[in-house]
Amino acid sequence: MGRVVALAAQVGGARLADGLYQLRGKELTVVVNTGDDFEHLNLSFCPDLDTIVYTLARVASASAGWEPEGETRNVQAMISALGGPDRPALGDRSLAAPLLRSEGLAAGRALTQITLDFCRRLGIQARVLPMSDEAVRTYVLTSEGAVAFHDYFTELACEPPVRGFQYAGADEARLSDEVLDALHAADLEAVVIGPANPYHAIRPMLEIPGMRELLRSRGAPVVAVSPIIGGRALKGSAGKMMRELGREPTARGIAVEYLRLIDGFVIDNEDAALAESIASLGMRVCTVPTRMRSAEDRVALAQSVLEFAAAIREARIAEV
Amino acid sequence: MGRVVALAAQVGGARLADGLYQLRGKELTVVVNTGDDFEHLNLSFCPDLDTIVYTLARVASASAGWEPEGETRNVQAMISALGGPDRPALGDRSLAAPLLRSEGLAAGRALTQITLDFCRRLGIQARVLPMSDEAVRTYVLTSEGAVAFHDYFTELACEPPVRGFQYAGADEARLSDEVLDALHAADLEAVVIGPANPYHAIRPMLEIPGMRELLRSRGAPVVAVSPIIGGRALKGSAGKMMRELGREPTARGIAVEYLRLIDGFVIDNEDAALAESIASLGMRVCTVPTRMRSAEDRVALAQSVLEFAAAIREARIAEV
Repeated sequence: MGRVVALAAQVGGARLADGLYQLRGKELTVVVNTGDDFEHLNLSFCPDLDTIVYTLARVASASAGWEPEGETRNVQAMISALGGPDRPALGDRSLAAPLLRSEGLAAGRALTQITLDFCRRLGIQARVLPMSDEAVRTYVLTSEGAVAFHDYFTELACEPPVRGFQYAGADEARLSDEVLDALHAADLEAVVIGPANPYHAIRPMLEIPGMRELLRSRGAPVVAVSPIIGGRALKGSAGKMMRELGREPTARGIAVEYLRLIDGFVIDNEDAALAESIASLGMRVCTVPTRMRSAEDRVALAQSVLEFAAAIREARIAEV
Repeated sequence: MGRVVALAAQVGGARLADGLYQLRGKELTVVVNTGDDFEHLNLSFCPDLDTIVYTLARVASASAGWEPEGETRNVQAMISALGGPDRPALGDRSLAAPLLRSEGLAAGRALTQITLDFCRRLGIQARVLPMSDEAVRTYVLTSEGAVAFHDYFTELACEPPVRGFQYAGADEARLSDEVLDALHAADLEAVVIGPANPYHAIRPMLEIPGMRELLRSRGAPVVAVSPIIGGRALKGSAGKMMRELGREPTARGIAVEYLRLIDGFVIDNEDAALAESIASLGMRVCTVPTRMRSAEDRVALAQSVLEFAAAIREARIAEV
């Protein structure tokens, strides 16, 4: 067994990363979207990074996977009482990482090193890496102009129709040495793109110069898991955004977004009828249960994904 | 009845300020020590300002007056889990003011305006003012060198013997326009120096150029309340510091610290035997119960202090 790299974001991505982590431990590297990061009260919030870290550390809430279990809002209550902003409604435990991160960044430390320190302290054996140490910010293009994703999500409640996306800073951002090392590992076995919004969760990672080429050239199968089941996003607004962009709001629509990037696509049993049509796009298809309700579901899906990647590798060898 | 200015710091000073506030409402201005302020995690902590604000807003803990009632430590638990500093042990509600203050300061707002905003939002009618908008930092001189007061208090637990104090920045600091306005009020009735450590709580305010002269020249009686009862500081380490500095660790020793500044000194009934000796220093003495255990105690002491000041004023008029 070799190394596995997961591209992850959001709660679904975190849960699949956790399944992979249970199977592969320190052989796993999770590359995480930072396009949704934002500043609030002069602190650096990295929602995707923190979601992954809490999940792998087993401190994430079962019902609200983006924050620690048993979260409280006492800081926020006093912020509001003192006339500060009511939103986003900060969690107490969730404030610790932004506080330490902001202090570290102000002292000149790289986001990658700060994140790896958190992992070490929480006993996470896998490597959790921001996609870049440089800032990339995803903007949602709406009829009212470009809106930072965080504002679109919180202030606008994802309501204005989406016309497109911009990834500010992506052209100048660099993949970190740690991300390059992970993807250049001689024993790289698979790259797994987690079930997450293709536009604001996964795409920012693909927009960093060199990322697509590197994924294509490495030889290890690139396998994605659909965030859409039966025409609905499990979490978040992927389906709504796809309709507004004139895309087909189905697992097949997601597959189209990853055309010429992935070798295999994992869809839910519920979407089995789409398998043939997706295969005709030029990729292999794996149909399994993809809902992750329990810890066992996470591991089972991760196992299916890795076996699927292994089958793609073997088929390639057979072809040669 | 005219206006009252209180110089306050620490829990004792906050409680007396609260008593004065109950009696005089918006006629009260509280000038607060900022020499004990410190930076932690890049945030600006102002322990004395926050203690006064919580107390006047009636949200201060009954047992730990420097923080809000029902304080929790959830942010700190996660900070420690992530490898951040264990001390000072941050309270959740207590973190709101430093967060908003730091954001305001970074945006170029003055500490005075930020503090007045907090008061407005919390419904405090009195004016709570930092002694200056410029930073003054109290250093404790020990055999191991100069230590910032906050570090002396938390890291060193006030243990190393004190050889003296330095007030860094005091020479360049200016009294704010708001403090000057309060002290120049035509109907200024009394200036009250609260029961607090004379060296690190009250003295920093007196070290700002012009403060002593202004207090002496205004004509309103300046009255101080002893933080020492029966040879012991009610809170904090005043007695210990006085011994180490070779001063008499009694109410009389405190009076000596305020020589040529105050017109009257308020001591506890327990120290009645010292009254004559203190009067011989050239000040009037008022002997009353000074322990503030209940809300009624605060008001009663405040009432005694204001009556004492009124008596000093009347005696002066009689002399003229």
